[in-house]
This record gives sequence, structure tokens and C-alpha cells, in this order.
Amino acid sequence: MTERGWRVTGLHHVAFAHAGEGPEDALHEALALDETHEETAPGFVERMFPAGSSYLQTLEADGEGTVQRFLDRRGPGLHHVALEVDAIDAAVADLTERGVRLVDEEPRPGGMGTRIAFVHPSAFGGMLVELVQRPAQEHAS
Amino acid sequence: MTERGWRVTGLHHVAFAHAGEGPEDALHEALALDETHEETAPGFVERMFPAGSSYLQTLEADGEGTVQRFLDRRGPGLHHVALEVDAIDAAVADLTERGVRLVDEEPRPGGMGTRIAFVHPSAFGGMLVELVQRPAQEHAS
Repeated sequence: MTERGWRVTGLHHVAFAHAGEGPEDALHEALALDETHEETAPGFVERMFPAGSSYLQTLEADGEGTVQRFLDRRGPGLHHVALEVDAIDAAVADLTERGVRLVDEEPRPGGMGTRIAFVHPSAFGGMLVELVQRPAQEHAS
Repeated sequence: MTERGWRVTGLHHVAFAHAGEGPEDALHEALALDETHEETAPGFVERMFPAGSSYLQTLEADGEGTVQRFLDRRGPGLHHVALEVDAIDAAVADLTERGVRLVDEEPRPGGMGTRIAFVHPSAFGGMLVELVQRPAQEHAS
């Protein structure tokens, strides 16, 4: 426990946004990174490729939404970085108190049993940061 | 040792490119991430913020070069993801044999005593991937 009641403990994942054919096959063939998890969300499909204890994530747009809007503005590219935290409720409360602008005012469910909250990109000069807390059973392993 | 003679062992860092005022102060104030390392290179300054055993990296353009060209095309944003590998010479040789296009045909010195090689973004649908091998003394720790 820190003075703030929470801390960043690592990089959880980095997300790459694309439409149509993406890097998924090449991640397998060139780097031997294998997809272990896939979820559909409104407007995109999210896929996770473990790299050590972290992940590469791909976001494939398949409809209107935040991923497609990112692609319209910038083209395929790295979309956000997810930092792992040890206590996301404390993190969101602390950041709110510090006046840091959040996209998610409360933590919400993310993929693979995680709890997540996005910080508004204006807080970090345009860098979109997601905070992630892993499910409790993963902490015990 | 794998069949390929090398493997990806984790996320080493994620790099965010900007010019002028960047997220460095906010990373400290909001997330308690502190810069531990800074290097200057032609056209940019590179700063490392540890997050667990990985890093957030910022690239501040201060002249012409690859970072400024990225900013001219896309504006501030996540620039590349660096994957840690256990044997970078074997990785580069293996990828070359597989016909994967590399920016660096041979590993070269990176920051903090690492050895690095960039893969050409066309290999992963526009995602710029750097391979990183940490210095030997870090493996022993």
C-alpha cells in the first residue's frame, strides 16, 4: 500500500486498431504469439495475444464506434496503452480528487474478468491510458 | 530454448511521440510514474518511466527525423511497441529467413544497454514493432 492507496504495477496491454485484414496472422507466424482470447463489443472485435505476463491486443473495427472513429482520423495504429493497477477503485477516486479527467467515472467490467477505467487523453497530452485491475484469482497465482 | 531458437518474453516498453509539452509531468503527478532514464538521439529525446518490469517511453521531437515525420503525419500518439526477446541475434536471423521485412538488418545498441531491432511496419499491418534484448546483467537479476 502506498500513500495514495494504489499504484501502477506494470503494462497490462497495448492495443492496435485496424479494419479488415490486420496483424493477427503475422503475430502468430513471425513472432509465435498466439491469440488466447477474443471478445466482441459494439463496433469492434478485441483479441488478446499474451507476451509474457502482458498482452498485445488488436481491435478490429466491424462497425461504427470509437475504433472506427480512431481509424477515420488516424488510420491503423496503436490506440491505447493499459497500465495495470493494484486497486482500481482507489485509483479512480484518487484521480478524480486530483482533478484528472476520466472517460469512466467509475470502474467498469473489461475483458477477461478485469475491471477497467479509461483516462481522458487530454490528461496525458493525447495519450489514451486505460487502467486495469486483474481479477482476484490472477493475483493469487 | 524453443524450436525457433528465440521467443518473445514480454512487453518491454510502449513509446508515445510528441513535440513541445508532453505527458511527462502528468505521468509523475497523476500516476506516480517517475523518469529514471533519458537519452538524446538525433532529432528527439527519449525518456523512460518504469511501470513494473516494463516502461512507458516518451519521444520528444526536437528536430527533423523519424519522430517529427511521425508527428507531421499523425500528430501526437503511440509510436511503437517494444517486445522483449530472449535472443535477438537468433530473432533477427530467423525473421530474415522467414522473409519478414526488418528496418534493422542487424541488432544495434538501444537505450540502457539493450540491443534492439525494428521490424518494418508493413510486416504487421502498420504496427511498428521493436525487438529488445535486455543487457545480460538484467537477466541474472
